[in-house]
Amino acid sequence: MILDDISLQKYGYIERGPLNAINIDPLQRGGILTDEARRALTQWGDGYSVCDFCPGVLDQIKTPPIYDFVHEALPEFLGIDEVRVTNGARESKFTVMHAMAREGDWIVLDQVAHYTSYVAAQRARLNIKTVQNSGNPDYKTEPQGYATAIEEVIKESGKPPALALLTYPDGNYGNLVDAKKVASICHQYDVPLLLNAAYSVGKMPINAKDLGADFVVGSGHKSMAASGPIGVLGAVEEYADIVFEKSPTHKVKEIELLGCTARGATIMTMIASFPTVVKRTHNWDNEVTDARWFSEKLEGMGLIQIGDKPHDHDLMFFEAPIFFDISQKVKKGRYFLYKELKERNIHGIKAGLTKFFKLSTYGVGRDDLNIVVDAFDEIIKKYE
Amino acid sequence: MILDDISLQKYGYIERGPLNAINIDPLQRGGILTDEARRALTQWGDGYSVCDFCPGVLDQIKTPPIYDFVHEALPEFLGIDEVRVTNGARESKFTVMHAMAREGDWIVLDQVAHYTSYVAAQRARLNIKTVQNSGNPDYKTEPQGYATAIEEVIKESGKPPALALLTYPDGNYGNLVDAKKVASICHQYDVPLLLNAAYSVGKMPINAKDLGADFVVGSGHKSMAASGPIGVLGAVEEYADIVFEKSPTHKVKEIELLGCTARGATIMTMIASFPTVVKRTHNWDNEVTDARWFSEKLEGMGLIQIGDKPHDHDLMFFEAPIFFDISQKVKKGRYFLYKELKERNIHGIKAGLTKFFKLSTYGVGRDDLNIVVDAFDEIIKKYE
Repeated sequence: MILDDISLQKYGYIERGPLNAINIDPLQRGGILTDEARRALTQWGDGYSVCDFCPGVLDQIKTPPIYDFVHEALPEFLGIDEVRVTNGARESKFTVMHAMAREGDWIVLDQVAHYTSYVAAQRARLNIKTVQNSGNPDYKTEPQGYATAIEEVIKESGKPPALALLTYPDGNYGNLVDAKKVASICHQYDVPLLLNAAYSVGKMPINAKDLGADFVVGSGHKSMAASGPIGVLGAVEEYADIVFEKSPTHKVKEIELLGCTARGATIMTMIASFPTVVKRTHNWDNEVTDARWFSEKLEGMGLIQIGDKPHDHDLMFFEAPIFFDISQKVKKGRYFLYKELKERNIHGIKAGLTKFFKLSTYGVGRDDLNIVVDAFDEIIKKYE
Repeated sequence: MILDDISLQKYGYIERGPLNAINIDPLQRGGILTDEARRALTQWGDGYSVCDFCPGVLDQIKTPPIYDFVHEALPEFLGIDEVRVTNGARESKFTVMHAMAREGDWIVLDQVAHYTSYVAAQRARLNIKTVQNSGNPDYKTEPQGYATAIEEVIKESGKPPALALLTYPDGNYGNLVDAKKVASICHQYDVPLLLNAAYSVGKMPINAKDLGADFVVGSGHKSMAASGPIGVLGAVEEYADIVFEKSPTHKVKEIELLGCTARGATIMTMIASFPTVVKRTHNWDNEVTDARWFSEKLEGMGLIQIGDKPHDHDLMFFEAPIFFDISQKVKKGRYFLYKELKERNIHGIKAGLTKFFKLSTYGVGRDDLNIVVDAFDEIIKKYE
């Protein structure tokens, strides 16, 4: 190909199709920007905008107030000693794994861990031991499973794993495990616990100290109304010096962060949304109420909500034999549901899925949730 | 601290001070957004916006046309077989180092390498051998220095380094080393060469194949008019399978990229600016002419341009004894230059610097460059 006017036509400014749809994709709900963040984008969009007054490293920038945000506001918000911003939750996890473990060491993951936890461990060249869950339909992880997994690692390798990770909640079923118990079990074996809170920090109150976590990881674009990619990484004092070790040759630069991470508009949108994000975590009970109401409505139509029930999170997984049956009979086959929803301006259930799918009710509000509920109802009746 | 209305006041929407200044900071020039990229920000700002139609991994997304961009346009633009987007040039470099080397292996860096090359090597736990340069005032790196460094590594460790890196240009003096010769020397020892082109890809024509580089790294926010953090990483076919190895458990996910990287507005601003960026690289000769003109003007006032002369890049380093002398005499001391420039709406020379500083003329244009030249002239005359 030659990069001429014709071949370049497909690039340039492109519109986002489902921008104004009711988007119930769990990936999208917590990352919708606040008005303040949208305004911040136009101010701070240029490449290295935040570096105008950089004293040498991102988290030390006083203008704009990144220093205060990283060293005062975020530690308070997450309930942990030291915080840095990263390029995302997965990068936060890799950073901890890479700093805390050496090639060939073991890590314990809950079986329902996000794929990026597995891939981060693979990148750090670690061995993975998983904590099993109860399987269908609850997929419940018992805290005691961490003791079993840790003991298996000790038996196989002669020492405890370098780290354990709990996904809080997991990204498939939205289950919340008793993190305090998991932390207490891990600490009995002197194993530090990383809480992957990519779907919770910024939506619900998360306090690492209260939960007993040694590391907490959040996602800006997933749950903190920030433009991605950006994440947060909190560490207790005991491990902060390891994870945030400074370069021997470039004294202010932290090795695992490669000096600076979210160096641009991403951090400024996170800061712009932060006051709203702090406040919305106080509204969490109402979000859970909405999720449960929505789940009941769908179950009333014959769908089955998988995972914790009653549910404690906006992310929910449904089994929908009724839609699967329709897909077997109609012309458009397994794409019928996506198309029917699209006609009703609802986006977020992957095209082609009918039997199993996940969605999120976070911040949708009762009015739009009613539209979604009515849409499901209409579609079922249409094909009866 | 408590996160209440008062303490949260300092966050939210914040204005960028020097937004409308003539900004000659080398970090900033190549990352100023195009109008198309600014519009893209408002469309794609939401967290995971590009993932509406994700088939499982970022570079495979067809809507928007990320697949075509990553697999057709960028390989053509960089002259290399396989390309991925990353979270920045430093992340690209770490990815290559981590994939190509193992703990304790050696890497060869030019002494003037960017600090992130050193820190990335430290993160990958490699030993570093540097290629010396000629020192003040040219800081010239001779390609033959790579042979010397490689042979030293062989002598010390019994095998060649896992990788060599050339900074093209370096971020201090803007020097361009004969990359072809460096590549040819490295290949004589079977050492792959990584070209760190963070200050060149997106500004000047860079073709990895023509230069003989095995890897090429660029920066979206530094030089491709993209909102950061975002970078590009190109690899020749021979090494692509190593660097972009897929997960054994999650078949479509690339381990070193942790699955997906620039998953949001960053990639969409890079795509939005891409047609303009391609075209502006064809204007490189005029940029070099502007840089040389500017350098001559400043040298005419008694400043000394350090590094290659005549210069071949917009990034230039100056020694300014005349400003240093003034700083010794005036009240505001070493901050006088920053303040004088600020009064003239010129930003980008770090506050406190007078004797040595770097700047960039990239895309400033003769009108604004004249304003900068006149400002220097006025300031010198004012304190005579």
